[in-house]
Order: sequence, then structure tokens, then C-alpha cells
Amino acid sequence: MLNYQAILEEIHTSLKKTKNTGEIASYIPELANVPKNKLGIHLQLITGENYSVGDASEKFSIQSISKVLSLAKAFQLVGNDLWKRVDVEPSGNPFNHLSLLELEDGIPRNPLINSGAIVIADVLLSHLKNPKEDFLNFVRELTHDETISYNEKIAESERVTGFNNYAAANLLKAYGNLQNKVEDVLDFYFHQCSIMMDCRQLTNAFFVFAHKGKCIKDVQHLTSSQVKRINAIMLTCGFYDEAGEFAFEVGLPGKSGVGGGIVALLPHCFTIATWAPALNPKGNSFLGMQALEQFTTKTKLSIF
Amino acid sequence: MLNYQAILEEIHTSLKKTKNTGEIASYIPELANVPKNKLGIHLQLITGENYSVGDASEKFSIQSISKVLSLAKAFQLVGNDLWKRVDVEPSGNPFNHLSLLELEDGIPRNPLINSGAIVIADVLLSHLKNPKEDFLNFVRELTHDETISYNEKIAESERVTGFNNYAAANLLKAYGNLQNKVEDVLDFYFHQCSIMMDCRQLTNAFFVFAHKGKCIKDVQHLTSSQVKRINAIMLTCGFYDEAGEFAFEVGLPGKSGVGGGIVALLPHCFTIATWAPALNPKGNSFLGMQALEQFTTKTKLSIF
Amino acid sequence: MLNYQAILEEIHTSLKKTKNTGEIASYIPELANVPKNKLGIHLQLITGENYSVGDASEKFSIQSISKVLSLAKAFQLVGNDLWKRVDVEPSGNPFNHLSLLELEDGIPRNPLINSGAIVIADVLLSHLKNPKEDFLNFVRELTHDETISYNEKIAESERVTGFNNYAAANLLKAYGNLQNKVEDVLDFYFHQCSIMMDCRQLTNAFFVFAHKGKCIKDVQHLTSSQVKRINAIMLTCGFYDEAGEFAFEVGLPGKSGVGGGIVALLPHCFTIATWAPALNPKGNSFLGMQALEQFTTKTKLSIF
Amino acid sequence: MLNYQAILEEIHTSLKKTKNTGEIASYIPELANVPKNKLGIHLQLITGENYSVGDASEKFSIQSISKVLSLAKAFQLVGNDLWKRVDVEPSGNPFNHLSLLELEDGIPRNPLINSGAIVIADVLLSHLKNPKEDFLNFVRELTHDETISYNEKIAESERVTGFNNYAAANLLKAYGNLQNKVEDVLDFYFHQCSIMMDCRQLTNAFFVFAHKGKCIKDVQHLTSSQVKRINAIMLTCGFYDEAGEFAFEVGLPGKSGVGGGIVALLPHCFTIATWAPALNPKGNSFLGMQALEQFTTKTKLSIF
Repeated sequence: MLNYQAILEEIHTSLKKTKNTGEIASYIPELANVPKNKLGIHLQLITGENYSVGDASEKFSIQSISKVLSLAKAFQLVGNDLWKRVDVEPSGNPFNHLSLLELEDGIPRNPLINSGAIVIADVLLSHLKNPKEDFLNFVRELTHDETISYNEKIAESERVTGFNNYAAANLLKAYGNLQNKVEDVLDFYFHQCSIMMDCRQLTNAFFVFAHKGKCIKDVQHLTSSQVKRINAIMLTCGFYDEAGEFAFEVGLPGKSGVGGGIVALLPHCFTIATWAPALNPKGNSFLGMQALEQFTTKTKLSIF
Repeated sequence: MLNYQAILEEIHTSLKKTKNTGEIASYIPELANVPKNKLGIHLQLITGENYSVGDASEKFSIQSISKVLSLAKAFQLVGNDLWKRVDVEPSGNPFNHLSLLELEDGIPRNPLINSGAIVIADVLLSHLKNPKEDFLNFVRELTHDETISYNEKIAESERVTGFNNYAAANLLKAYGNLQNKVEDVLDFYFHQCSIMMDCRQLTNAFFVFAHKGKCIKDVQHLTSSQVKRINAIMLTCGFYDEAGEFAFEVGLPGKSGVGGGIVALLPHCFTIATWAPALNPKGNSFLGMQALEQFTTKTKLSIF
Repeated sequence: MLNYQAILEEIHTSLKKTKNTGEIASYIPELANVPKNKLGIHLQLITGENYSVGDASEKFSIQSISKVLSLAKAFQLVGNDLWKRVDVEPSGNPFNHLSLLELEDGIPRNPLINSGAIVIADVLLSHLKNPKEDFLNFVRELTHDETISYNEKIAESERVTGFNNYAAANLLKAYGNLQNKVEDVLDFYFHQCSIMMDCRQLTNAFFVFAHKGKCIKDVQHLTSSQVKRINAIMLTCGFYDEAGEFAFEVGLPGKSGVGGGIVALLPHCFTIATWAPALNPKGNSFLGMQALEQFTTKTKLSIF
Repeated sequence: MLNYQAILEEIHTSLKKTKNTGEIASYIPELANVPKNKLGIHLQLITGENYSVGDASEKFSIQSISKVLSLAKAFQLVGNDLWKRVDVEPSGNPFNHLSLLELEDGIPRNPLINSGAIVIADVLLSHLKNPKEDFLNFVRELTHDETISYNEKIAESERVTGFNNYAAANLLKAYGNLQNKVEDVLDFYFHQCSIMMDCRQLTNAFFVFAHKGKCIKDVQHLTSSQVKRINAIMLTCGFYDEAGEFAFEVGLPGKSGVGGGIVALLPHCFTIATWAPALNPKGNSFLGMQALEQFTTKTKLSIF
């Protein structure tokens, strides 16, 4: 039997000594103020045990990690019709995120790149009565945690600087793949990205993907077939243009955010979340990637 | 000595019999209402003679033709500093207009593609006191014609449907190549595109490029070196991704617009404008392209 | 306990009724002669049980499936140095296989696209004494089967028609990422692709990837860490530009070939191979893809 | 009346003082041995006067300049059918020369990029009885000069290092846009590029494009319509991805080669050739570009 607590502590000790060459994301001013040396890891087994080290209970902005949660809600609401508006293939290079949209007539390559997540946000706006409130409630139900909230300051900070997302949303609109107003869709999108969680809350939220669609309170939110598909998308598309590298080094479905969080999971086994705000050049947490690579190497637990 | 009037009439007669397979631009609702069978040609020699056939005195929206006039004004205002923010190379394919921006770090390929013209609009906004008024005055001075105006209905029509231009402007903003607000720059841009002229007025406006920088009233607006450069840009970039074809078939610097207008010129010799609203698949006037090809073939007058 | 034989038979019966809209690959003349209605499936559990239906014991050309075997041999020979010459990211679109090479300075996106497999062939040429003989012996050892051979007619057929591969190899050479002569590397590459196997032999060959690096005779050929990485590459890159779709619908690491074969595996559990020569528009076996989708749906066995 | 000799001397003197930051092309070993400080200019008026400075009578390898001569011969032989196999649009970026071929189904963007010139070479191979001999005779007729020859050493040097051209030719073959064997087409192509001329000979060879299709001995080789089209292609496509810049700064149809030569012309007026072997980062002669810019600025002679 593995001593998970000892393993997390080994990893934490080793990474605290590592020279951290990552950089804090500066393009969202509100994110730039986070101390660079933070490092937290939380592991939750499917059987309910929890293990924690470092800054695992400190909240941060989950950013792109929210894309998996909005995808889950949209998949729950509209089923396979979703795939008429967004594809499920990895996106390749970073340089061409809008050019891919142009080449592929306004169908985003997958729901975890920004343009794809904006289409998902549009779907939620069309199907939820009070979109921001209802989506937050979905996240609170998954985590059984009423303290989870939007960070209005971060959402506003993105609203005034998110020109790339305005470009993507307008291009989608030009291709007829956005039903609601650009401003409304992006307001929702900036809010979902601003959600604050700590590592433990993230392992709660993603428990549903490790447990055949059932959340930590054993409520069935998604079918096991939907969960299988979402996990496949996380594996092939969850780490920008480093998805292949993450599958190769870590071997788990997961998702990163520019707030420095990463969450990953082994179906039927565990969910794990890390937080370390400095990012590598591809936009993924520098220490978080290493923490997860060490974890799967030490435990020999991966999907491969 | 060539009988220009007879040549224009021959061309007009021949094209009236041609099956017009072009299509009216429908993406700007206000443009979609123009009758498809309109055809006008106006020729103005550098020596002042004027020749006209068909609907040459009917006004239409000059659209992208305005990009040459805004370029001229911006070049006049800031000189060669302009080329720090926009390049002078042809753009190649249509499919990748935003992808080129991404590949080239926000520097538009040339000032006659939309993203380049938006940068030029931004320059004018930064340097003109009353941008819309001052720019219109510049066009009125070039043409010596106070009747030339914006068409507010067309400008508004583009404002509510121009998602591609919003995408381009936001992407430029993301790259730091837009100083003013997206909304303000596009308001100016949609107005410049909405300017109404007839064929004769267009030959007046472009006289300055055929006459070493002097307008029809012999006022020097641009240096002859600036005019040479603007003509070079028109030749290599003036017809979307059909620029090579136009140089090859017609052999004149020129510019087309989706309103169905084309204006072209032979330095030191003449300016010529055509109007026929149905467009070929590349977005250039179907009959206008043929009219100009016939004109340079019949007269053997081209820069080559 | 699942009745695997019954499940394979159900799938076989159902697919025999399916309208097969796939097309036999015609660009390699020798492949064009295979009857379109062939369909075989073979399943091998890690515990040694075997289940079979249809044409599972008929040999066919494994084509691109061989890329995983050559990758395994090269990884065994040179270890992680391999990744200096080839990346591990999914490739995105089909249209741009050479353009990606150009964009990325001659480093193929992954070892399972043609340019990447050509680099792997070059590595084997540099490190094996008698490359074609030694590689065939490696495959025979994995499968414990001396009857496996090259098909000289198919290899020759590719040699005289494989202009795309000559283009890729010359481009690699231009970038300095090919050490041996183009002709020699491609001679090896066309031979590896020509290997003939039936479905059962394929499940034998890929047993090593399901069993932590040990072949069916329990000999350790690769480390478990190497196997994990190769499985990750198969999952993210094994199906041309349909890799995301395969992960999404099937959820197993695998590899397809234009000969109509597909092999896939669940680590620690089973290997499965299908053969049905007609291909979908993305170049993967039309019925094979469906067979595997049905198999993982019926058994609920997938990595996700 | 302009004093051309004085102007050429001014330019020569000024450029001799310029810091030459260009680099000799090193990828063809035989070209790497040329002294970097060479500089020659030759001007020939349509009226027959000749003006010369510096190393204008020293021979060098004309390289890509030959593409215009092979285009002229192919156009003469097959007329407008040529344009079924090659387009006439500028190519945009350098990075994507093969990707453009892939995007455009094997139709090269224009006859002056390598892939286009290889198609032209294929046309000549199909239509000339003794291709290398007949093409050389065509060049000798244009120049009325029997001393012009291939440089076998340079041709051989390209044959063993021209992997990019092998890649392009094989890709064309894969798309069905090459009728002859790759080896045969490239043997012809490497020979045409190896032709040795000095600046004066170049002005003789290109006289035909300034004089409505008549060579220096007044023989009609091309129609004036063909000449107009070839000049248009030179203007829009003659300088790799610096064609816009050359049109903008110089304003003449022309063509450069990596041997350091440039030839340009003003229809009905003159041909001019420069030679200075060090190249700018875009592959055009560093001093040659400046010489021509100074020449058209000082003389105010350009097509614009």
C-alpha cells in the first residue's frame, strides 16, 4: 500500500529546492500580484481519503480549468448536439488559434481552447435561465460547497484587457457560430474563468470525472459515457500545445489554467490538484507539471 | 490618336451582352439592394479630357477604395513612420487574413487589407482633430467637390454586422498595434467605407496618384515619392488575392471595393473608374475587371 | 464475467449489415486489389485467452501500424535522445504535414506521422547492423513468430509511387534531420510498412505495450516507463487527424494503417486488432473504427 | 538629359562606402567562394546606349534570374495553357513554400518561386527536343552571344545539395503536376540556374521584355501581350517575399538570384543589371537592392 502523504511531501520538498524558471501570467493584471513561490498539492482517492501539502487550501483563480466544468454542464444540457458546433481534435500550434477557426469555417477545434470554450459559454447562455447564477450553482453542487464564488475584480480585469477573446468571439459571430451577443457571452466567460477555488475544492469538483459521473455526494450528474468522452478531451486537448507532452510525461486526463492550477485524475482511482502560479513558456504551471510527473512516476499510477 | 469615347462605348456594348455571373455583396444589407445590371465607366486624361459611358454618374458606396485615400492622408501626416505599423507585402490567400496577423505579431501585411486599413484609421484618429470631418474634407479637396459625403445608413449597417472587422481590430489591440478604442477606430473605418461617389468623382479623387501628387486643381498634396509608393502598393495589393491576376491582365495600379467600384490609373497619363455591382468570387467587380482588361488591351496603355 | 466471444460475434454480425461507405486505398497499387468486404477481429487478454471472428487469420499489409514497432525499437536503442529529433505533440490538420515541418524547422510533430516515422527509420539505419533483417527479427521476437515477413511487391509498389514520402525525406534532409541517404531511409521505411500480419499476430506484437514492456513470452523488451510513453503517443497521435475522435469514441491507445488494420490496447488488460480494408475519408478503417467503438461501449473497458 | 554614366558612378562610389551587412549564399558550396566586395552595374537604353561601372563584365551564376527566361520560352511554346499548371499570384511568406503547394493542390503560386519554376522546367522538357541545348540556344539568341554557357560544377553542386528542390519536385509529382521524372526535371532546372552571365549580358537578355518582345537584334520572340504579362509577374513575384518592398522602393519589374545578380527594366526605356554577391536576409543582393533604389530615385524613372 502506497503512503500517499509521504509521497506528496517528498514531491513538495524536492520542488521547493527546484529553481523555478516559470513566470506569473501578467496579461491579466489581477493575476500578476500572486506570490510566485506558492505550491500546494491535494490528492483525493475515490474511496474518500484526502492528502495535502503546502498551500493546498489557498484559493486562486481557476481560469481555463473552468472550461471542463462548463463543457460538462453544456454536455449535460444538450447532449451530442454539442458536437455540431465544436470539434474534439487537438489544436496543434499556439500561433494559429484564430487561423484554425478561419480554416475550419468557424468550428473551434475543441472545447478547451478559448474559441471552443466561448462557444460552450454561448450554449449555456442559450439554455440556462440565469446563466451566471445557475452555472455557479452547478459548481457548488459538484463540490457540495456554497463558499465557491466568482471573483468580480478578476472578471472585470479580463473584460477590459481580453482583446484576444473579443477577437475570437467576433470571428465566431462572423461565422454564425455564436447565438448570443458577443458582450453577453464574454461576460459569462470572464466570470466562469474568475471562479476561486483551492486545490481541495478542485479535487472535489473533478471527482465526478473519476467516478462515472457521480459527484462526491454520489449524485449522478453525467452519464458514464459522457464522462469517458470528457476525459478523452482533457487528455488530448487539456494543456494547450503541451497536451502531447503531458500525456507522455504524466499520463492522466487533466486541465491547467493560467492562474497556476492543474487538476488531473485517474478514472476509478483519484483526483489530484496542484497550484503553483509561475507558468512555463507554454502557459502551464512550471512546478505543477513537475509535481504531477513525479507523482505518476513514484506511484506508477497512470492511464497507460 | 485614340478615340477614347468610341473605345468606352465598344466596351460598354460588349459587356452589356456578357452573361454576368457575378453576385451582389450581401453581407452588408444596405449594399444588397443595388440593381445588378448597372455599368458605368469614366476616363479622365491627365490633360483634363473626360469620357463617359453608362451609369458613370450614379453614386455608389466606394467601400475599400477608400483605403487608398486614408492611406494617402496618413502617409501625408506621419511620413515613413507609417511603415513601422504596417508592411507593404502582398497578402497571398484570403483564408488567412487573421492568421497572418497572428504569424506576424500584429503587423498587417499591407494597408489595403482590412486589418491594415484599420491600423491606418487608428493613425488618422490619433492625428486628426475632428477625424471624420477632417478626412471628408481631405477627400473633398482632392476632388474639389463639396457634395461628397458619408452614407450614415451604410456605416450603421456595417457597424451592426461587421464582426470580422471587430475581430481584426481586437486582435490588433491584443498585439498593441491599435492606440485608440476599438469602437472609435471602427466607427471611423465604417464611415470612410460608406463614402458615396460616382465614377467621375473617383477619377477626380485618384488624379493625385497619376499626377505626381497634384490634385485636379494642381495643389500638391503628396510628394512624388509618396505617390510612387502608393501606386506600388495598389499594384501589388489592391485586389485582395487577385492582385497578381489584375497586374497580369490589366497592368495598372488600382483598387476595387465590394460596392462594385474599381479605380485604376496610368501614371502621367489617365485615371479610369468603373462601376458594376456584381462581384466575382474573389470580391472584385465581375464586369469592371473585364472592362479594364479590354481597355488596356485595346489602347495598349499599361505600366508594363 | 464478460462473454468476449459473444461480444465479438455480435459486433461482427452488426457490422456485416452496415453499409460500408469506406474506400480501399488506391494510391498503393498493390493494396487496391484486396476485397472490400473482409472483416476480422481478434482479442487477446493479458491472461492469455484469445477470441476471434471473421477474417482474423488472414494476412494484410500493416502499413503505418509498423510505425509503433519501429518507434519501440528506436526508443529501446537510443532512449530519450530520440526526442531531440522528433516531438510528441498531435499534428492537427492533414493538409499541412509538410508545412508543419517547415514551421518547426524540420522537427516532425510526432513519430507516427510519415515525416516522424521517416526520422525513426533513419535512427534505426544508423544503429542497426543489418537494418531490415534486424528490425524483422525484433518483430519476430515480439510475436514469437518466424513466419512474419516483408512483402517485397508492396515495398516496391510504394517505392515507385511514394512521391509524398520522397518529398518529406528530402525536406528532412534539407533541415539536417536525416543522417542517411534518402533512398536508403525510404527503402527501409517502405519495407517496414510492407510487413504482413493477421489480426492475431498484431495482438501478439502489441502485447508488449499492454504488459509493461514484456512480450507474450514474458521477455522484457522495453521499460514500463517507455511503454507508458509509447501508449501516450498512440493515444494522442495514432489516428492521423482523427486521433481526438478515436480517443473520444473508443478511448484506447491504438494505431491504424491504410491496409485497413487497427490495433488497440488497454494496459494491463488486453490487446485487440481489427481488419477491414475500406477506409473512411480520414484514412482509418471504416468498419474497424466502429468495431472498436462498439467493443469499448459494450464492455465498458477503456482507459477513461 | 540625364548623365547616366555620372549617376552610375555616384551610386557605385556611395555603395562602396556602405557597410555591407549582407552574406554570401553558402548553401550552394560553389557560390560560397565568390569575393563579397564585388559590385557591378550595367545600364542599357532601349535606344542602344550602354553605361557601366565596377565589376559589370565579370560573370556570375544567374540562378533564379533564369526563371524569367525559362518562363518566356515556355510561354512562347504553349501560350496561355501554361496557366493551367501554375498561378500568377504573389506567394506571401517564405516559411510556407511547400505548405502553399499543399493548400493549393499542387498548383504553384507563381512561376518565379522554386516549385513554379520546376513546373516550367517540366513544360520545357516535354516540348523541347534537346531541352538543355535548345534552352541555351534560346538564351544565346536573345543575347546574340554564343559565349553564354552552363556551369557544370555549379549544376552538380546543386544536384548533391538541393534537397529542398527534390522535396518540391516530389510533392509536385505526388499532385500529378510533373510529367517527366523528378531527376530529369531537376537536372534541367539545376542547369538553367547555373548559367553564367555578366551584367551587360543580362541587360541584353532582358531587352526583349523592355522592347515589346523584340530582342536586341530586333527579332520578335514574344508577343507584346506576353511581355506585358511576364513583366507583371516579375513586379508582383520577382523578389521572393520582398516583392512588395522592391515595387515600393524601386518600382520596376525585375528578378533577383542568389548569385547576387538583379536585373530590372522600364518598358520602352531601359534594362539595368547589378551584381553584388552578399545577400540580405530575404535572399536578395544587399547592395544591388540599394543600387536600384538609388537609380530610380535619382532618375525619377519608374513604372509608377
